[in-house]
Amino acid sequence: SNRASSTGATPSEEMNGNLMDFLDEPFPDVSTYEDFHTIDWLREKSRDTDRHRKITTKSKESYWELIKSLLDAWSGWVVMLLIGMLTGTLAGVIDLAVDWMTDLKEGVCLSAFYYSHEQCCWTSNETTFDDRDKCPQWQKWAELMTGHSEGAGAYVLNYFLYVLWALLFSFLAVSLVRVFAPYACGSGIPEIKTILSGFIIRGYLGKWTLLIKTVTLVLAVSSGLSLGKEGPLVHVACCCGNLFCSLFSKYSKNEGKRREVLSAAAAAGVSVAFGAPIGGVLFSLEEVSYYFPLKTLWRSFFAALVAAFTLRAINPFGNSRLVLFYVEYHTPWYMAELVPFILLGVFGGLWGTLFIRGNIAWCRRRKTTLLGKYPVLEVIVITGITAVLAFPNPYTRRSTSELISELFNDCGALESSQLCDYVNNPNMSRPVDDIPDRPAGPGVYSALWQLALALIFKIVITIFTFGMKIPSGLFIPSMAVGAIAGRIVGIAVEQMAYHHHDWIIFKNWCRPGADCVTPGLYAMVGAAACLGGVTRMTVSLVVIMFELTGGLEYIVPLMAAAVTSKWVADAFGKEGIYESHIQLNGYPYLDVRDEFTHRTLATDVMRPRRSEPPLAVLTQDSTTVEDVETLIKDTDYNGFPVVVSRESERLIGFVQRRELTVAIKTARQKQDGVVSSSVVYFTEDNPQVAEACDPQPLKLRRILNLSPFTVTDHTPMETVVDIFRKLGLRQCLVTRSGRLLGIITKKDVLRHMAQMMNQDPESIMFN
Amino acid sequence: SNRASSTGATPSEEMNGNLMDFLDEPFPDVSTYEDFHTIDWLREKSRDTDRHRKITTKSKESYWELIKSLLDAWSGWVVMLLIGMLTGTLAGVIDLAVDWMTDLKEGVCLSAFYYSHEQCCWTSNETTFDDRDKCPQWQKWAELMTGHSEGAGAYVLNYFLYVLWALLFSFLAVSLVRVFAPYACGSGIPEIKTILSGFIIRGYLGKWTLLIKTVTLVLAVSSGLSLGKEGPLVHVACCCGNLFCSLFSKYSKNEGKRREVLSAAAAAGVSVAFGAPIGGVLFSLEEVSYYFPLKTLWRSFFAALVAAFTLRAINPFGNSRLVLFYVEYHTPWYMAELVPFILLGVFGGLWGTLFIRGNIAWCRRRKTTLLGKYPVLEVIVITGITAVLAFPNPYTRRSTSELISELFNDCGALESSQLCDYVNNPNMSRPVDDIPDRPAGPGVYSALWQLALALIFKIVITIFTFGMKIPSGLFIPSMAVGAIAGRIVGIAVEQMAYHHHDWIIFKNWCRPGADCVTPGLYAMVGAAACLGGVTRMTVSLVVIMFELTGGLEYIVPLMAAAVTSKWVADAFGKEGIYESHIQLNGYPYLDVRDEFTHRTLATDVMRPRRSEPPLAVLTQDSTTVEDVETLIKDTDYNGFPVVVSRESERLIGFVQRRELTVAIKTARQKQDGVVSSSVVYFTEDNPQVAEACDPQPLKLRRILNLSPFTVTDHTPMETVVDIFRKLGLRQCLVTRSGRLLGIITKKDVLRHMAQMMNQDPESIMFN
Repeated sequence: SNRASSTGATPSEEMNGNLMDFLDEPFPDVSTYEDFHTIDWLREKSRDTDRHRKITTKSKESYWELIKSLLDAWSGWVVMLLIGMLTGTLAGVIDLAVDWMTDLKEGVCLSAFYYSHEQCCWTSNETTFDDRDKCPQWQKWAELMTGHSEGAGAYVLNYFLYVLWALLFSFLAVSLVRVFAPYACGSGIPEIKTILSGFIIRGYLGKWTLLIKTVTLVLAVSSGLSLGKEGPLVHVACCCGNLFCSLFSKYSKNEGKRREVLSAAAAAGVSVAFGAPIGGVLFSLEEVSYYFPLKTLWRSFFAALVAAFTLRAINPFGNSRLVLFYVEYHTPWYMAELVPFILLGVFGGLWGTLFIRGNIAWCRRRKTTLLGKYPVLEVIVITGITAVLAFPNPYTRRSTSELISELFNDCGALESSQLCDYVNNPNMSRPVDDIPDRPAGPGVYSALWQLALALIFKIVITIFTFGMKIPSGLFIPSMAVGAIAGRIVGIAVEQMAYHHHDWIIFKNWCRPGADCVTPGLYAMVGAAACLGGVTRMTVSLVVIMFELTGGLEYIVPLMAAAVTSKWVADAFGKEGIYESHIQLNGYPYLDVRDEFTHRTLATDVMRPRRSEPPLAVLTQDSTTVEDVETLIKDTDYNGFPVVVSRESERLIGFVQRRELTVAIKTARQKQDGVVSSSVVYFTEDNPQVAEACDPQPLKLRRILNLSPFTVTDHTPMETVVDIFRKLGLRQCLVTRSGRLLGIITKKDVLRHMAQMMNQDPESIMFN
Repeated sequence: SNRASSTGATPSEEMNGNLMDFLDEPFPDVSTYEDFHTIDWLREKSRDTDRHRKITTKSKESYWELIKSLLDAWSGWVVMLLIGMLTGTLAGVIDLAVDWMTDLKEGVCLSAFYYSHEQCCWTSNETTFDDRDKCPQWQKWAELMTGHSEGAGAYVLNYFLYVLWALLFSFLAVSLVRVFAPYACGSGIPEIKTILSGFIIRGYLGKWTLLIKTVTLVLAVSSGLSLGKEGPLVHVACCCGNLFCSLFSKYSKNEGKRREVLSAAAAAGVSVAFGAPIGGVLFSLEEVSYYFPLKTLWRSFFAALVAAFTLRAINPFGNSRLVLFYVEYHTPWYMAELVPFILLGVFGGLWGTLFIRGNIAWCRRRKTTLLGKYPVLEVIVITGITAVLAFPNPYTRRSTSELISELFNDCGALESSQLCDYVNNPNMSRPVDDIPDRPAGPGVYSALWQLALALIFKIVITIFTFGMKIPSGLFIPSMAVGAIAGRIVGIAVEQMAYHHHDWIIFKNWCRPGADCVTPGLYAMVGAAACLGGVTRMTVSLVVIMFELTGGLEYIVPLMAAAVTSKWVADAFGKEGIYESHIQLNGYPYLDVRDEFTHRTLATDVMRPRRSEPPLAVLTQDSTTVEDVETLIKDTDYNGFPVVVSRESERLIGFVQRRELTVAIKTARQKQDGVVSSSVVYFTEDNPQVAEACDPQPLKLRRILNLSPFTVTDHTPMETVVDIFRKLGLRQCLVTRSGRLLGIITKKDVLRHMAQMMNQDPESIMFN
C-alpha cells in the first residue's frame, strides 16, 4: 500500500521512480565505516530517525508489526538487562577466581583445592580472626611438601614457590594476550573514550577480546603485579555491551546508538568494580562518555543496578556487601583535621603528576626503543622483580585490595592486625567499638616501617607496570599508594594527639580518653586524593567514596582532598592519565573539556593551504564516470564536495566516497548504457540527452548530501571546535558567500588544537 | 604596550585603527538582551573567551594583574560558596518559621511564644512520646482562652481559630505577592527551566522576588494549604545565585555564564529541600538545566554540599539529620512484594496524569475566565475550604511533611501513633525493633478510614491549589498522596499476610511470627511513584529517595515504582507538569528530550513564506543611513542579514539590531560628516569616496558578524532542531549555494514543532 502512491505517474517519473527504488536498496556495507575512521553523528542520528519513522508507520498496518515495533522500543531495556546480568556475573567470577589464585601462590586448601584461604577456613572452629587464619585445612606449600611450617627452609621454599606462581600466571597472561587478542592489554579506558567519541576500532570490543581479557585479567591480578581490575572491568563491560548490541539491528547497524549502549555498559563496569552504581553512572558521564543524552542516563542507571545486584547475588566476598571496601567509622571528624586532609590532597596531586610523567615517559620509551619488541620478557622481568620484592613485606605480599581494605579499617577491639597493636589501658572498660585514644604498641611501629617501604615500592613499580601488554587497571594501585600514605599520616596525627593533649590544636576536640582520630579515615582520604590526582575524576570519585562509606558524614574531607589533589595536579599539567595515553597513542579524541581559546579562524585551519593543490571537487553536470573513478583512485578522502562549476565554485552538496564507489559500481553492472564517458549528474532536473548515440547519463542526486555543514572562512576556530564537538561532525566545508574555499576535517581540528597548545598563546594573538 | 603594535602603520590604517578603537569601546547596554528575548549562547561563549583571553594576557604584565586573574579564576568557587551558605541559611530559617507558625494555628507556647510545639515540650519531663506531646507549657487556644481543653466548646473554638489563622496567613501571602513581587508566585521551576534555556525574564530572579518569596513561602506553607516548599526553594536558591552573580562582572555581564551559576543554585535548592546533595545535582542535571558542562557538575556539587552543611549547622529539625524524612527499616523486601510496588507505580502514573490534566484545565480556566481577575479571593476561598475540611481529620490537620514522615515510619515498639496500634501478643518478648507480624488493632482500622478520606481530599484540593498566586511547590502534596495510598496498600498486604500465612504467595517468606511486611516502605514507594508520575523525574528521584533511606537495599522497589509510574503516565501524555506549565504559558522552551522525527525541511519552516514580503536585508555598500534607520523603525527583527546586492542575494554576514542602532547613533553624534544620506559600508576595503562634497561613508564592518550560522534549504528540520538545541542559536539563515533564501528563528522552530506535534504524523510523511 505504500508503493500505491507512486502509481499513475507519467512514464518519465515512473522511470525516475524505478531508479530511486533501485537506489533505495541498501548498498552492501555502505552504512558501515572503515576501521580507524570517525563516525558522523548527525548522519547516524538521522538514519535512526528514519528507521524509527518506518517502524512507526508500519506498526499501524498490522498487529504483528505493532508487536514488532513495541519489541523494538523495548530492546534498549532488554540490552541493558542483559549487559547488567553478564557484567555482574563476570565480575563475580573474576572476584572468585582472583581470590583463589592469589591464595594459591601461598598454599592450598586440603578440604577442597578450589577454596580460597578464607573459604577454606570458613567453617573452622577457631573463633578469633587471628586463629582462624591459621586453620589446619589450609596449608602453605612448604608445610605440605616438607611437613615443616616454620624455619628458614620453609620460608625459602614458600618464597620460591610464590615467585614461581607469579611468573607462571603473568607468563600465561601475556602469552594469551599476544597470541589471541592483542587488544586485551592495558586498562582499555583511553580506547573506550576514543571509541565513544566516535572512532571505529574493529575488534576492540569483540567476543575474543572479551574472553581473553576476562581470563588474563584474573591471571594478571593473581600474579601479584601492581595493577587492579577496575579499568579492565569497564572494558569487559563494554565488550558485553557490544556483544548484546549485535542481537538487535537497532544497535548493531547504527554506530551512534551503539555508543549509547556502550556508555551505559561503562557505568555497569564501574558499578561492579566498586559496588557503587550511582558512582558508576557518574563516572561514565564525567570521565568516559562523549554523547550522553538523558535517556542514556536512566538506562545506564538501570544497567548499573542490575549489574550490582547480580554481583551481590553471586556474593563473591561472602559478606552480602555490595561494596568493595565497606567501612564504618564511629567518630566524627574535626575542623583541625582538614589540615592533614589537605596535605594528603597535595600528596595525591604530586603523586598523580609523578605517575603520569613517569609512566608516559616509560611508555614512550617502550614505543620507540627495543623494549617494545620484547613484551613477554618485559612482563616476566617486572613480575619477577615485583614478586621478589613483595614477598618479604607482609603488606605487599597479599593482594592489593586486601591491603587497602585493612588500611581503611578502623581498629575495633577484636582486630588482630598488626596495625591495631595499641597499648590498652587495663583500667579502661568500654563498649567494644568505642575505644579511647591509646599509645601505639611495637606492632604499630614495625607496621609503620613496613608501610613506608611498601609505599616506595608501590610508587616505583606501578609506574613501570601500567601499560604493559597485560590487562592492567590503575585504580587499585593508586588507591593503595594513597591509603598507605594516609594511614601513616593518620597514625602520626593520632599519636601526636595522644602525647600532646595540651597542644592548642588538640585542646578543643581531643581530650584525654576521647577517641578523636581515626587513622582509617586518613587512609580513605589519601586513597581518594591519589586516585583523583591520577585520573582527575571529581564528582564521580567523591560519589564512589560516598557509596563506600554510605554516609554524608565524611564527604567534606573527601572533597577537600579531591579538590586539592586536582588543583595541585592540574598546576603541573591539565591532562589525566587517560588523556595522556590518548595523546601518546595519537587517537583522534576531541576532549569536551579542553577549552579552545585561541583567536584563529576557520581560514587558518582549512585545507587546501596556500601551497597545496586545489580541493578535489566534483561538478554537478560536467564530470564523467571515468573522472570520478580516477579521483577515487588517486585520493583517499572520505568524500567530495560538489560544486556548480569549477569557475563559480558555488557549493551545492557533498558526496561520500563509499556511496559514490558503490553507486558507480552498481550502475556499471546493472544500468544499461553507463560507460566511462557517461556524465555524472547531480542536478535536480533530468539532463537533456542531445543525441541517441551519446552515452547514457548517470544520475546520482540520490546520494548527494544537499545539506553539508558549512561555516564561513571568518568563523572563529573556537566556534568551529564547539560545532565539531557538539554535533559530532566528521568534516565541515568552508565557504565565503557560497563559494567553496576549503574543508576542515576532525583531524585538522585536532592537529590545529595540538599546534596551538604547544605554541605560546601570545605569539598567536599578535601574529 | 598593547597599543604599541599598531604604531608605524600607514595613515589610512591609522585612521582605521582609530575607528576600531573607538568602536572597541563598549557600547552602552549593547551586551545585554531585552526582556523576554532569547540569548545567543555561541555569542555569550565567545564573549567570555575574549574576556578570559584579555585577563590571561594582562596577567603577565604585573603582579597585581596576576592576582586579579587568579581572583577571577576563583570567583566561580566563591559564588558557589556564597550561594550554598545563603541557601542553607534561608532554608533553615524557613523551616524554623514554618514549624512555629504551623503550630501557632493550634496553640501557643507559654514559656516562650516563639517556640514551636516540639521545641516547647523539648525540656518537658514526660518520657513517652504521647505524654510529651501534651506537656503543660504548650496550650491550645481554647485552653488558654477559656481554661477548658476538652468538650464541644473548646473544639469549636480551636476549629474556628485554626481556620482564622489559616485565612490570615494566606491573605498575607497573596497580598504580599500581589503588591510587591508578582513573580514570587507558583513553584518557579517552569520559569527557571525557561530562563536556563536562554530566555530573559527581568526581575524574575531579583532581590525583591527573593525577599517576598521567602516570606510568603513561610506564610503559604503555614496556612496549611496543600502545597510544599521544595519547588519554591529552588526558585529562592536561584535568586540567591543571581544576587551573587552581580558581585562578579564575569557572571553579571555574561548571560551564558550566569546560567551556569543558576544551574548550580538549583542543585543547592533541592539539596536543602530534601537534604540530598547528590540528588539535587542530578535533579538540576536531569530536570532543570539546559547547558550543563562538566565544570558546572563539579561546582553544583560543591554548592549543594555547602548548602546541606549550612542547613545542618542550623539544625532546624533538632535531630542533626540532614534529610527531610529520615527512615530506617529493619526488614528486607521480598520478590513477591514487587507486585504491590508495581501497582503503586501504576497508581502514581494515573495520579500524575489526572493531576496534570486537571491542573492544566483549571489553570487555563483561570487564565481565560473571570477567575483570574480575583486571585486574592481565590486564595482565600481555597484556604477556607482546605482549613475547614482539614481540621476534623488528624491526618490532614497537621503539616503535610509531618504526615509524610509518620507514614514513612516503621512501627517500633515505642511508637505511640494510631497507625501503630497493633494487638500485641503478651507472650512474645523480643528486642525493641524486631517485631513479629501482628493483627491490626482498632486504631489502625480507624486510621485507615481517616487516611482514605485524607487521600481523596488531598487529590482534589491539590489540583486546585497548584498555580494560585502564592508560592506553591507540588513535591510534598504529590508525595503525600502517594504515601497515603502506599501506607493503605502496605497495611492491607501486611494484614493479608498475617491472616493467610498459608497462601502460596506468603508461604515462602512470611512464616507466622516473622516480621515480613513494612507498611512504611510501601508509603515511600508510593510517594516516589506519585512524584515520578507528576514530574517524570527518574534518576534524580531514585537518588533522592536513596539518600533519604541511606541504603541501596530499597532501590529496586523504588526503581520499579518510578519506572512503572513514568511509563503509565507517559502513555497518556509525554509532558510532565513543568513542561505542561511551560506550554500553557507559551514560554519559548526547546526541550532537549522532545524528539523531532518529522520529515520536514528547513525550507518548509523558514520565513518569508511564499505569500509574505521578501526578507528585510541590508546590502554591503548601497544602503544609506536613512534606509537603515527606516528599516529599524519599521521592523522589530533582532537583526538583519547583509548581502552583496539585492540582485545576487549572496550572503556575507549578519548584523544585530541593537548594535546597528547604537553604532549609527554614536556615529551621528561623534563622527563628522555622517548624515542621513551617508552610505553604510560593510565591505572590507575602504570605499572610494568620489568627490569631497559627498557625505562621509559610515563603515560598519566592525559590527558585522561575518560567520552567521547557515543551513541549506534542504537540511532536514530534525538536524536544524538539533543544531538549535546543541549550539543554543537564536536564529539561523537559510541559503542555497550561497544565495540567501530566508531565516529560521528559535520561535519559528518552536512553532513548527508544536504544529507537527498536533498533526497526524502520517499526513506529513505523505504530503
